[in-house]
Amino acid sequence: MTSRVNVAMVGYGFMGRAHANAWRQVARFFDCSLEPELAVVCGRSEGPLAEAASKLGFREHASSWESVVARDDIQIVDICTPGDSHEGIAVAAAEAGKAVLCEKPLANSLASAERMWEAVRAAGVVHMLCHNYRRLPAVALAKRILEEGQLGGIRHFRGSYLQDWIVDPDAPLGWRMQKARAGSGALGDIASHSLDLARYLVGEVSEVCGLLETFVPERPLPDGSGRGEVDVDDAALALLRFENGAIGSVEATRFAPGRKNQNRFEINGERGSLAFDLERMNELELYLEEGPESGFRTILATDPSHPYVEAWWPPGHGLGYEHSFTHSVFDLLEGIAAGESPRPNFEDGVRNQRLLDAVERSAASRRWERV
Amino acid sequence: MTSRVNVAMVGYGFMGRAHANAWRQVARFFDCSLEPELAVVCGRSEGPLAEAASKLGFREHASSWESVVARDDIQIVDICTPGDSHEGIAVAAAEAGKAVLCEKPLANSLASAERMWEAVRAAGVVHMLCHNYRRLPAVALAKRILEEGQLGGIRHFRGSYLQDWIVDPDAPLGWRMQKARAGSGALGDIASHSLDLARYLVGEVSEVCGLLETFVPERPLPDGSGRGEVDVDDAALALLRFENGAIGSVEATRFAPGRKNQNRFEINGERGSLAFDLERMNELELYLEEGPESGFRTILATDPSHPYVEAWWPPGHGLGYEHSFTHSVFDLLEGIAAGESPRPNFEDGVRNQRLLDAVERSAASRRWERV
Amino acid sequence: MTSRVNVAMVGYGFMGRAHANAWRQVARFFDCSLEPELAVVCGRSEGPLAEAASKLGFREHASSWESVVARDDIQIVDICTPGDSHEGIAVAAAEAGKAVLCEKPLANSLASAERMWEAVRAAGVVHMLCHNYRRLPAVALAKRILEEGQLGGIRHFRGSYLQDWIVDPDAPLGWRMQKARAGSGALGDIASHSLDLARYLVGEVSEVCGLLETFVPERPLPDGSGRGEVDVDDAALALLRFENGAIGSVEATRFAPGRKNQNRFEINGERGSLAFDLERMNELELYLEEGPESGFRTILATDPSHPYVEAWWPPGHGLGYEHSFTHSVFDLLEGIAAGESPRPNFEDGVRNQRLLDAVERSAASRRWERV
Amino acid sequence: MTSRVNVAMVGYGFMGRAHANAWRQVARFFDCSLEPELAVVCGRSEGPLAEAASKLGFREHASSWESVVARDDIQIVDICTPGDSHEGIAVAAAEAGKAVLCEKPLANSLASAERMWEAVRAAGVVHMLCHNYRRLPAVALAKRILEEGQLGGIRHFRGSYLQDWIVDPDAPLGWRMQKARAGSGALGDIASHSLDLARYLVGEVSEVCGLLETFVPERPLPDGSGRGEVDVDDAALALLRFENGAIGSVEATRFAPGRKNQNRFEINGERGSLAFDLERMNELELYLEEGPESGFRTILATDPSHPYVEAWWPPGHGLGYEHSFTHSVFDLLEGIAAGESPRPNFEDGVRNQRLLDAVERSAASRRWERV
Repeated sequence: MTSRVNVAMVGYGFMGRAHANAWRQVARFFDCSLEPELAVVCGRSEGPLAEAASKLGFREHASSWESVVARDDIQIVDICTPGDSHEGIAVAAAEAGKAVLCEKPLANSLASAERMWEAVRAAGVVHMLCHNYRRLPAVALAKRILEEGQLGGIRHFRGSYLQDWIVDPDAPLGWRMQKARAGSGALGDIASHSLDLARYLVGEVSEVCGLLETFVPERPLPDGSGRGEVDVDDAALALLRFENGAIGSVEATRFAPGRKNQNRFEINGERGSLAFDLERMNELELYLEEGPESGFRTILATDPSHPYVEAWWPPGHGLGYEHSFTHSVFDLLEGIAAGESPRPNFEDGVRNQRLLDAVERSAASRRWERV
Repeated sequence: MTSRVNVAMVGYGFMGRAHANAWRQVARFFDCSLEPELAVVCGRSEGPLAEAASKLGFREHASSWESVVARDDIQIVDICTPGDSHEGIAVAAAEAGKAVLCEKPLANSLASAERMWEAVRAAGVVHMLCHNYRRLPAVALAKRILEEGQLGGIRHFRGSYLQDWIVDPDAPLGWRMQKARAGSGALGDIASHSLDLARYLVGEVSEVCGLLETFVPERPLPDGSGRGEVDVDDAALALLRFENGAIGSVEATRFAPGRKNQNRFEINGERGSLAFDLERMNELELYLEEGPESGFRTILATDPSHPYVEAWWPPGHGLGYEHSFTHSVFDLLEGIAAGESPRPNFEDGVRNQRLLDAVERSAASRRWERV
Repeated sequence: MTSRVNVAMVGYGFMGRAHANAWRQVARFFDCSLEPELAVVCGRSEGPLAEAASKLGFREHASSWESVVARDDIQIVDICTPGDSHEGIAVAAAEAGKAVLCEKPLANSLASAERMWEAVRAAGVVHMLCHNYRRLPAVALAKRILEEGQLGGIRHFRGSYLQDWIVDPDAPLGWRMQKARAGSGALGDIASHSLDLARYLVGEVSEVCGLLETFVPERPLPDGSGRGEVDVDDAALALLRFENGAIGSVEATRFAPGRKNQNRFEINGERGSLAFDLERMNELELYLEEGPESGFRTILATDPSHPYVEAWWPPGHGLGYEHSFTHSVFDLLEGIAAGESPRPNFEDGVRNQRLLDAVERSAASRRWERV
Repeated sequence: MTSRVNVAMVGYGFMGRAHANAWRQVARFFDCSLEPELAVVCGRSEGPLAEAASKLGFREHASSWESVVARDDIQIVDICTPGDSHEGIAVAAAEAGKAVLCEKPLANSLASAERMWEAVRAAGVVHMLCHNYRRLPAVALAKRILEEGQLGGIRHFRGSYLQDWIVDPDAPLGWRMQKARAGSGALGDIASHSLDLARYLVGEVSEVCGLLETFVPERPLPDGSGRGEVDVDDAALALLRFENGAIGSVEATRFAPGRKNQNRFEINGERGSLAFDLERMNELELYLEEGPESGFRTILATDPSHPYVEAWWPPGHGLGYEHSFTHSVFDLLEGIAAGESPRPNFEDGVRNQRLLDAVERSAASRRWERV
């Protein structure tokens, strides 16, 4: 019989809702080696927290994550808070011997990320970073095609992640626009996804040249008490050189009207190309050189033969955003059962953070920087 | 405090899985007036049934729907079986005073559908037909735009529902290819969706001219015991005249290679047009005449201002197929709380069946037929 | 050395401009067996005619086509007038021994079309009907793929030709809306194109069931003298049965806001599908069943290996609408040199007219009609 | 009556064919103030030159451009040769008082470009650089929308020009891969187009950070005599800062399988966005923030209200690549009649060259460089 594991989740905002859904749903569709229980959700404000616990389906709620992560009955700690609290929670969870799932980016600084990685290694616990987009069927299919060598050696990676949610200069100054909470702006929030996909699909990046820009330097405070400084980037761009000789670019912005959540990439290899757009997340574009009738194929990534799809619906019945998380926790559960940390893990988090760090250094030095 | 209602679901195949998911999820995202409990799932084969109950999250399972629909603790009966058993279950449920949700098409014949409608009216119970696609945000947005009169009077409806799952002549003869179980083939299975959308978005159809075709008249039996006759249509086409003067067409086929689940429609009115494609279910195309810069707009139907979306994720984080059901059961729960049957209800089911019936009559008579 | 042939063109409206361009351009890009000279353009109104001759590059202009088609120095007569004058010109030209190119539809009635075909056969002259879209590279590529059998037997043809140029009820009553001049409305003007493509790509049609509709029955006269009756169809739909067992549909309308010139078709066969949209005329969509990575390919039909393309630009440098005519006159010139009438010829015109006629009969009888 | 002007064209390769077509066609569609005559085509190899003259429709051909540009009967010199000969021809033509049209990039070095600009200024002749893509209707429409301020201030420019014609490492070493002939590779050939569009649509660039890469350093010589060095870039990328505060990027490569001629740009402003893709050259994507029904509109840039379109066909009848040149020579003819040099002129050529130069300097210095 399947063992049950208790999950304690810290944070219940947008990411908390997405993770909770994944924990609830995973065993309804996948044959999991471990069946997760939504045990405790942790937060600070009693009222909203109680409501979230009820809505999201947690058995308990608690205002002190410190005591929860120490509880014997908890096997998994899932960190869904802003980046400034990741380290504290993750290190405590690791020291308590829990498996740890952490939202991206791993930390608000490279040093912090490295301490987190050290902590999970020292504790010998299973750890995973939640770069959920790796586990969309279309993206996982792209990975499989690349691993099969269908494109040959890779020459170009072209990643962009465009949003428009703060184009209005009177949009309030939320935590994602504050360096102390979020570490950086579009860079850590969404360029980090593009960089993770670059590493996942193409390989390690050796050097970068970056540009950061803040278009709206001051915004209304959410509580109406005046205006505050935006001390993070609104947009981040970087040129990339990969260790394997490929070249590339990433761009992230929150100032592209009409692009709601357009996480795109294109990869050009010796024998073909791949392209993906999160706004059409059930599709993968594949070009292979095959004579006069070559063309980009729009693969509907909804076939049972595609990664993760067999658990779901018949072909053509597309999946939604949230199942990138369902697939992530499925792989984490299997990892825990096997005693192995699924990728991306905290080491990937450190490597991603090195990239973010190099982009920031380059934006300051105005020259290429080694990662 | 929210009252709880117990749901008994009959059938646990593809549709049962989709409905069960909706019952589990609805109160996690929507503020429901009634909170559903997955009480009992009914089926015939003990082993798979027990497994389904466990997987889908039902408290109990039962091999006799007859006794379950009579239980006092059941408030909602959800019918997810093939069409040949709809009438028996629905009539029994209605007579027992239960709210009834029934998968489409309502029945395998017009007469059967009419008896079902009569039963729910006589019993005074809330009834709903599950034409789930009405409740995709993009489709509900199309309805809103039409109701606002943005397109003016409607001239054209162009619906097609293309699949390819039995293109292979050696695909086995499943229940959906047997008249005794399914009533008809592509006609009742998927043309019924296009016809429901035609009625929902444009209005009542007054006459039709139809064509039915079976390309592969014989197929292997699933149990390997030889070959059996396909006595339903593989493809169905019809021309339509609407009461309001619009004209249109619907086409449904299971023989369109590459079209996995392409439920499309286009509507042309006096001042604009709308187009939808289920394979890109988070998008709605809208054309309005607005001078030199007119063009079809691709609306990402993921904005909080769009129907049902506020309950979910931020803009650009698309929904999947299954939430068309989540939205359906949400509206049913609100309907039960209010004592009103949400559309489409069993009357819509009868009207849809009249259309299917007229198409069949026309295919036989080779002339236009009144609905 | 290449022989020169003198072309006399009758009519200099939209089609005349397109044909004249083709005659001017063909030998600049193709190696023609005969080099055309723009000898005479014929029309009725001296002023505009002289201007057209100068603008279009004709050496002469003449108000009597009767005398021009009799001239010894004319080898080709090109008919670009409304349908009511096609027969007179074509028969006279054939009797004078000229090669004849005629705009579609061949005539305003089946009887007239048959007389035209009889005339060219009796005279033994080369004849061609200008259904220009057959000779777009993407369409000719579709034909090649079909002839190679890549799709296997064909099951479905789905043609639609949507425009919106008279959505405004105050658009004036031009000749294309008058039965006496044009023969019919959307049916002969644009459904005839879809039907020609159906015959070209799939095969002969054996029976049809049609629907004709006029949404705006009265319009302002162009000269401002009041309003006149629209006695042709605004929209035409038909279901089709092909001799080879395929089924299909065509639809043509001038009332689809936002569809400027959307001539589309989709063909589904046993092993794949093809789709084309004139608004993206340099693309052909091809689906072949090829395992987990199957998908519709967007072939940019701009490769030297594609029909007609080698004469033009490098890959990706798309062609425009007018070159469908350039390719048509190229094939006509080669046909004249070889003494063979290229397809579509006047026999195709008669067959197309039989289809139009059957659709009209069916729209009146409200039942299926043999072609 | 319209005056005639004699055109002498130097070079008759791909660009020569495109220019000759434009000269032949312009007065057939546009009402030109001056009517061009294809007087002389100049080249080096007598045989192919005579054939080109005949095919392209020139009255004469000549092997010495030097004597031709000095002839009194020549009013316009059109330079379609590789970049290494631009300066010599342009300076001679200017000194002889001719209007000069020059293919892009203006020269193979900044110094050479500056001498050319100086020469035309000193001579007071009309001069124009042929960045043809500015004059596609969709691109000119984008310009109009920007000039009307519909997007507000611009924040992002994202340009890419992707081709795949030398992905095969055995593709021969043509002149476009030799620094002595072409000046640079993808940078001058196609990134120059993206940079011209950036300047045209957004404004002047103040600084750049560039990357150049050669994937295949050695290729077979065209004459089969062995292999030679590729001493230009196969791909060029750059980050951009504009004087007006916008930021951007350009990328050009000849190594993107499946991208035949994909010249794309996207522009994000305060209130909307624009996107264009040359592979769909008759379309412009426009996003304006307009409430719940906002979405990217696909404008078919084929309406008479769109730039240049009135001269052509009805809406929806798309234009081809070559008419970007027809529109360019139309504007040049009008410029000559008015005594004004149309943009882009040689000053634009110098500014573009400064950008190319800065990208090269930056690629070498590995840091941002002022333009």
